[in-house]
Amino acid sequence: MLTLYDFPLSGNCYKIRLFLALIEKDYQSIEIKLQEGETTQLSFLKLNPRGQVPVIDDEGEIIWDSMAILVYLARGYADRTWFPDDALDQARVMQWLAVSENEVLYGLARARGIRLFNRPFDPDECNAMGLAALKLLDDQLSQHEWLATDQPTIADIACYPYVALAPEGGIELTPYPAVLAWIKRIRALPGYVTMPGLD
Amino acid sequence: MLTLYDFPLSGNCYKIRLFLALIEKDYQSIEIKLQEGETTQLSFLKLNPRGQVPVIDDEGEIIWDSMAILVYLARGYADRTWFPDDALDQARVMQWLAVSENEVLYGLARARGIRLFNRPFDPDECNAMGLAALKLLDDQLSQHEWLATDQPTIADIACYPYVALAPEGGIELTPYPAVLAWIKRIRALPGYVTMPGLD
Repeated sequence: MLTLYDFPLSGNCYKIRLFLALIEKDYQSIEIKLQEGETTQLSFLKLNPRGQVPVIDDEGEIIWDSMAILVYLARGYADRTWFPDDALDQARVMQWLAVSENEVLYGLARARGIRLFNRPFDPDECNAMGLAALKLLDDQLSQHEWLATDQPTIADIACYPYVALAPEGGIELTPYPAVLAWIKRIRALPGYVTMPGLD
Repeated sequence: MLTLYDFPLSGNCYKIRLFLALIEKDYQSIEIKLQEGETTQLSFLKLNPRGQVPVIDDEGEIIWDSMAILVYLARGYADRTWFPDDALDQARVMQWLAVSENEVLYGLARARGIRLFNRPFDPDECNAMGLAALKLLDDQLSQHEWLATDQPTIADIACYPYVALAPEGGIELTPYPAVLAWIKRIRALPGYVTMPGLD
């Protein structure tokens, strides 16, 4: 049985819960008490030296980092369309995984972190990077239904949570109609699950 | 012929130049005048909407983002060992690509950006993330010769430049002997090329 070390309000954990639901992979969830500092304890640092959720344990193989976990699950348990074999398709997926790890994370996710969890980030920088993320995504999604290929991939799953949660960080999505339409398409995927803050 | 839109002092561009040299792939380099604002011009934004180097043009296919380019080149032109097919190996590579896009980039590369290019980042945050990067890498490399598998992968290539350039950002490598030994191993790879600031 696959185990997910999880936190309900983490967008990075939600990426994994959402993808596991979409590919219908069973798992058990262990909730980590983030606000009580559990990720800084030695027992957790043995799982993930970065002290972050999500982490998965798949029959003894420990994998940390949401991007790495998505690639692992896509290669091991999903239809190839989620992370295709072809070099160019993989590059296209990686481009938008990079956006998820940069503009989306350091902009949108951090802006939300300031408001929800009193994180000590620079609001101006988060806002500027967040708007850059949304412009990039809106431009791409006004030409394409999905970010990387003509089907949903792990790039869509990696970008979606903190984009859809942007209003919690004070960043409105109304100026980005192509992003809003893409959010609707993701919510219509068979097996879709939600998280707190999204509805 | 593969074209690399390049900038000599960019560690992200150097990742691509180094990997192309290691896999003996011919290319031509076009130097972008970063300091004159060329990446913000419309003609460049058509290549990369993020306005960043590196970008490659492979017979008309345009790929931006250093991580995406490394995956593309590894899948298309390199021995499989650089980015293996196996789900678990790919996950291990992705873990350290994630570190290269987070702690290494927002810590070590930004600390260097402050000193070399007067970039407006928070020195304390860059320093803290940079030291976190080096501790993570040193712990891993004191147990393993290479970051992700038992051979060099694109994860090593992605982490190497801004780690080796850390002293330019005022972060010394002396306290990290396993990192220093890994730098020596990378420099000994057949085909290795250097960049300004490394010697």
